[in-house]
Amino acid sequence: MIVIGELINASRKAIKAAIEAKDAEAIGKVARDQAEAGADYIDVNAGIFVGKEPEYLKWLVETVQQVTDKPCAIDSPDPLAIEAALSVHKGIPMINSISLEKERYEKLLPIIAGTDIKVIALCMSDKGMPQTVAHRMEIADKLVDGLVNAGLAVENIFVDPLVQPLSVDISFGVAFIETIEKVVAAFPGIHTACGLSNISYGLPARRFMNQTFMTMAIAKGLDGAIFNPLDKQMMANVIAAEALAGRDNFCMNYIKAFRAGMFEG
Amino acid sequence: MIVIGELINASRKAIKAAIEAKDAEAIGKVARDQAEAGADYIDVNAGIFVGKEPEYLKWLVETVQQVTDKPCAIDSPDPLAIEAALSVHKGIPMINSISLEKERYEKLLPIIAGTDIKVIALCMSDKGMPQTVAHRMEIADKLVDGLVNAGLAVENIFVDPLVQPLSVDISFGVAFIETIEKVVAAFPGIHTACGLSNISYGLPARRFMNQTFMTMAIAKGLDGAIFNPLDKQMMANVIAAEALAGRDNFCMNYIKAFRAGMFEG
Repeated sequence: MIVIGELINASRKAIKAAIEAKDAEAIGKVARDQAEAGADYIDVNAGIFVGKEPEYLKWLVETVQQVTDKPCAIDSPDPLAIEAALSVHKGIPMINSISLEKERYEKLLPIIAGTDIKVIALCMSDKGMPQTVAHRMEIADKLVDGLVNAGLAVENIFVDPLVQPLSVDISFGVAFIETIEKVVAAFPGIHTACGLSNISYGLPARRFMNQTFMTMAIAKGLDGAIFNPLDKQMMANVIAAEALAGRDNFCMNYIKAFRAGMFEG
Repeated sequence: MIVIGELINASRKAIKAAIEAKDAEAIGKVARDQAEAGADYIDVNAGIFVGKEPEYLKWLVETVQQVTDKPCAIDSPDPLAIEAALSVHKGIPMINSISLEKERYEKLLPIIAGTDIKVIALCMSDKGMPQTVAHRMEIADKLVDGLVNAGLAVENIFVDPLVQPLSVDISFGVAFIETIEKVVAAFPGIHTACGLSNISYGLPARRFMNQTFMTMAIAKGLDGAIFNPLDKQMMANVIAAEALAGRDNFCMNYIKAFRAGMFEG
């Protein structure tokens, strides 16, 4: 599982305050904690700061990279902010995300064309949020085609079929996991990644439902996710599901996690 | 989810003692508790009593049916014991199980041919335990063909792809859940059912791994399982996974379970 640590997001109060105060120590600690807990990428998001997003995103990348050698997932819909962040990023970052929305797509594609950058390809278009598996696959097809034609390796693409709340439509859980399975079958070597917590919007026991959904998505082939790696119960689910999905030789990681007390309580 | 309550099994000490003492009250309580917790079938197994299995299985069926109107899952590899149990069973039972092992198959098929009996079709043959998805599907094909030709409705067949321990081979989790998916796709209207706990044999944190595996199997289409319905954590996993699999309109059952405190702790 490719873990994208979600905590450095300005929509969280403490992060917003730390960014405004340019508190490098506070941001650095959250970056380091996530890296130690198993994050492969540190997501950075300054989306709430209209007008200042490029400046703040750049600062976040520099600040994170001072304390960890994990790459960042540059989290913005705005090509200008992404370009600013890329200008200072060392190593190979992930971009979170491109979509089929015309303006976003046309401005971002030239920036990443021909590079080794990893990119999340979000199944969204100007027609709005996709409802069915077929609609998600139609968008995924176009995105993957466009990215590969622009010189990106399929291995650097992470398709995100877009999680929508089960409380809105009982079919949205299946629509998501079926798309994961179809994407993995259609594009050998491709990755998938997503934030899962929308699934439980409007329902009780959200953490438990999110964990259960993560496990189900892994059963269908999900191999990347944006979540809080400090959430031990979620990590325990990921580790057990990965072993059961055959991705943990001799269950070494599972047994190590057990010894570290991950499955207690 | 079609829940087959597993607790009335003579390999459990308390059940063994209750059977030997013909303690109808003790057996009745375990039957009633499982029915109240959501069991659709009450499994009865007296397999450890060599020579006395037919007599005891018959008594178990009578005893269970005195306290609940749930049908039994008659759990034996022995056609003679199954026939004895069937002779007293009221309503439509399940048989657990037929397999492709020659003697078991040839003696059991005439007993169930042309009936409405539900039957678990275990993917096992005289060649031993299947290793791969292909081998499981080969056995499933032959079993389903044979049962349908004998006049059973496909809707009354529950294929069990046979869980084997992940500690023996890291591919055994995937082999099982992939077979579930293929069986559901190959035979419209068919059911699947299994005991899951073998998956974690030889590994630590077995309950957690079993719950995780249940969730993954449901993601792939599992709609029946033999387990302990009094295990609240397992039931919570089943209820959340069923909602996420789109099998719980308006999440009514999920919300009801939340209100009943199923997701606490």
